[in-house]
Amino acid sequence: MAKEVTSYEENYAQWYNDLVIKADLAENSAVRGCMVIKPYGYAIWEKIQATLDKLFKDTGHVNAYFPLFIPKSFLSQEAEHVEGFAKECAVVTHHRLMNSPDGKGVVVDPAAKLEEELIVRPTSETIIWNTYKNWIKSYRDLPILCNQWANVVRWEMRTRLFLRTTEFLWQEGHTAHATRAEAIEETRRMVHVYEKFACEWMSIPVIVGAKTASERFAGAIDTLCIEAMMKDGKALQSGTSHFLGQNFAKAFDVQFATKEGRLEYVWATSWGVSTRLMGALIMTHSDNNGLVLPPKLAPIQTILIPIHKGDEELAQIRECLQQLKNELEAKGISAKIDDRDNVRSGFKFAEWELKGVPVRLALGPRDMQNQTIEIARRDTLEKQVLPQAGIAGFIEDLLPQIQKNIYKKALDFREKNTFIVDSYEEFKQRIENGGFFLCHWDGTAETEEKIKEETKATIRCIPFDAPDEAGRCMVTGKPSAKRVVLARAY
Amino acid sequence: MAKEVTSYEENYAQWYNDLVIKADLAENSAVRGCMVIKPYGYAIWEKIQATLDKLFKDTGHVNAYFPLFIPKSFLSQEAEHVEGFAKECAVVTHHRLMNSPDGKGVVVDPAAKLEEELIVRPTSETIIWNTYKNWIKSYRDLPILCNQWANVVRWEMRTRLFLRTTEFLWQEGHTAHATRAEAIEETRRMVHVYEKFACEWMSIPVIVGAKTASERFAGAIDTLCIEAMMKDGKALQSGTSHFLGQNFAKAFDVQFATKEGRLEYVWATSWGVSTRLMGALIMTHSDNNGLVLPPKLAPIQTILIPIHKGDEELAQIRECLQQLKNELEAKGISAKIDDRDNVRSGFKFAEWELKGVPVRLALGPRDMQNQTIEIARRDTLEKQVLPQAGIAGFIEDLLPQIQKNIYKKALDFREKNTFIVDSYEEFKQRIENGGFFLCHWDGTAETEEKIKEETKATIRCIPFDAPDEAGRCMVTGKPSAKRVVLARAY
Repeated sequence: MAKEVTSYEENYAQWYNDLVIKADLAENSAVRGCMVIKPYGYAIWEKIQATLDKLFKDTGHVNAYFPLFIPKSFLSQEAEHVEGFAKECAVVTHHRLMNSPDGKGVVVDPAAKLEEELIVRPTSETIIWNTYKNWIKSYRDLPILCNQWANVVRWEMRTRLFLRTTEFLWQEGHTAHATRAEAIEETRRMVHVYEKFACEWMSIPVIVGAKTASERFAGAIDTLCIEAMMKDGKALQSGTSHFLGQNFAKAFDVQFATKEGRLEYVWATSWGVSTRLMGALIMTHSDNNGLVLPPKLAPIQTILIPIHKGDEELAQIRECLQQLKNELEAKGISAKIDDRDNVRSGFKFAEWELKGVPVRLALGPRDMQNQTIEIARRDTLEKQVLPQAGIAGFIEDLLPQIQKNIYKKALDFREKNTFIVDSYEEFKQRIENGGFFLCHWDGTAETEEKIKEETKATIRCIPFDAPDEAGRCMVTGKPSAKRVVLARAY
Repeated sequence: MAKEVTSYEENYAQWYNDLVIKADLAENSAVRGCMVIKPYGYAIWEKIQATLDKLFKDTGHVNAYFPLFIPKSFLSQEAEHVEGFAKECAVVTHHRLMNSPDGKGVVVDPAAKLEEELIVRPTSETIIWNTYKNWIKSYRDLPILCNQWANVVRWEMRTRLFLRTTEFLWQEGHTAHATRAEAIEETRRMVHVYEKFACEWMSIPVIVGAKTASERFAGAIDTLCIEAMMKDGKALQSGTSHFLGQNFAKAFDVQFATKEGRLEYVWATSWGVSTRLMGALIMTHSDNNGLVLPPKLAPIQTILIPIHKGDEELAQIRECLQQLKNELEAKGISAKIDDRDNVRSGFKFAEWELKGVPVRLALGPRDMQNQTIEIARRDTLEKQVLPQAGIAGFIEDLLPQIQKNIYKKALDFREKNTFIVDSYEEFKQRIENGGFFLCHWDGTAETEEKIKEETKATIRCIPFDAPDEAGRCMVTGKPSAKRVVLARAY
């Protein structure tokens, strides 16, 4: 095999990095912390985008676009928000370069200093609520249900491709409502849209719940989230939906006239997912042979490989594969023939396995004689030889099975690695091996902080579906009404 | 009418601005020179994007994503490029803010100064060719046919919504080829993709040709373009495709091994269109009542308005309209019912006219009795009453007619305002009234510069389809082989 992937048992971090690089998803750029998303990786992101965009529109949202830059003073308007976001960011201070006096290259023109610095948006609540101020006068202007697809920048010290990069791509929804109840309903609606997307498209089971106060978005009253378990038992927060109350409306003085003519502050939500989802996708399904892509998000769903000796043999085989490709495409299944002549078929097998293509077809001279074809599933690595006739229909049935199977595998894995623990001592030992822990917690930030300091684990969420169960906090012994999910996280 | 639009005869610039603002396309933001693209404007841009994206993919291109930031030193690598782009730009110098010592807000942390400043990309040739260096080793790695959809920043002193903004959205294609001929072919292919898009989707006739040396992209060997005529007779460059030769390959040392094993520099192209196209769309078709959108790009193709007195009447009419809406949507035609109860139907008529919706249906009590409906075309402002039965089919036929009609109107306008002139004196007088001028030019930058200085007109392009015609330069009398297009431009 040309490109060897480090096994995840041996070095998990290296395994992840190998997958991203060797499957041609992304790479580091010349700019520290910023990545280049390569065509194969971007094709997956495009499918994520298109699907989510449709889900957003089906729930009544529209897209818009707000500026990349935020005046520095805007960030200070909302007290908690500035603490969370105004620290590590890209600051634009000048608007011109000039030829260097020494004749070598260009330097910043000191005369072109901006009166007020601009921040490259780390998130857009402030600039958007400053805009909404002019859009909202009366209850008739509400709700506003906007989303934007954009790039954002958070200056990260330690970066990892897709998981934590200085620049990343995302969508951010920003909605404005007349009532508290409507905004809360929207916050819930969107976290469930994310849940649906994770389960049905990404084949990733997620736990839906609320963050504790200390894990909330800076400026939110409540943060809902979806949490997924990665192959190393760590959690990855895959999407968040925030109920912002009237915090941003007050910070930017956005009031509306009610039907009855009173002036009230507007209620807000925001919600987002990012290219981080690519990291979740990789770390949920992949194995030591490479990626395993869910059929619904795979840029290529079927790879067709000719096995041949001479050129004449190839011509016949290629013709047969081309016909198959046409049949697949007529059914809306994407297919590609790999007829490169400079690599062997074993190399091709390994390469498309590495790239996670769900179904592989291989056609050789004996198959041509027997009118058969070899079909291999990426998820189970099973191979079988089937008649050529009806193979497109077979694949049409197989793809949803693969989609479900990898979901089930991920769910089984999560269940196997989810533990109910009541003793803090036991927790401290077992957290070393990863996994989700369902534990009682006394609801205080102090206990949460103590757990984090002593174990590096955090409360990932208070799950919506956690049953009421009287118990005692595993740390302090104080009463608790339900279990929360604890894990180490990305 | 609630929102009056300044007439374009009276004040063209104000007319344009009124349309953008009052039709809810975009507005200025709190950040100087940056716009907010509002949902209605963004919906048009999404259709532009989706169509172009398909045209790019149909011609073999894939999408990728490259960093927002460019290290300052990269811009200096290509000598002409730095002159064109490294001057007015957004410069990131720091990566952290801190609480102000006086306790008021945040200030730039002087300790967080970057070693090398980063420039917010004004265009991405440099960062992309620095990346391609690692992607290209042999002829087997070529061609690379990448496009990216992105935001870019050019610090503009005077800005106008869509036409010239500090931040704008665009796509930039960047391709790498083994031979000069192939790169030239790609450059031509893409300018023709833009031509096709302008004509068939935007209903904008364009002149396709090559720029003169002084109007070329900074770093290009040849720049091809499409030029459109706006309602005031000025030209708007609507898309460009550049043959970059080996300039960027040499600047970033990108060589490949040929089949024969020689090392050669790679050949490059780049091509782009931006949100500027929105300006072209507005200024080609609109009138004093507002926008006139080509059906293929209209977010709402049919608006349905109930004319009613009481609530009971409304219920019946709404039911009928809903059925019609379903029929239209079943045919893939977008439709919206405007049943607001706080504005009169006259207001609604004016508002949807302003927003350029191609077809309006109005249904009142008499129509209900007669089973008729009033249909109005936005392009001709013609109204007629037709039977309700078959109206969806009628609209299905009508939309392509409107699409063609506004193209023809724009073409007629351009032809009426295109003049063959051989005397420089005559040119100097007539250019004051706008229009395209087909003139002989001696091919020198000096003459071009003189014309520009004396008349503010530039050579828009040397059209591909200009017939060979021996003549004499209108300024110097020197020989010329074909006429070029001169105009004042946006």
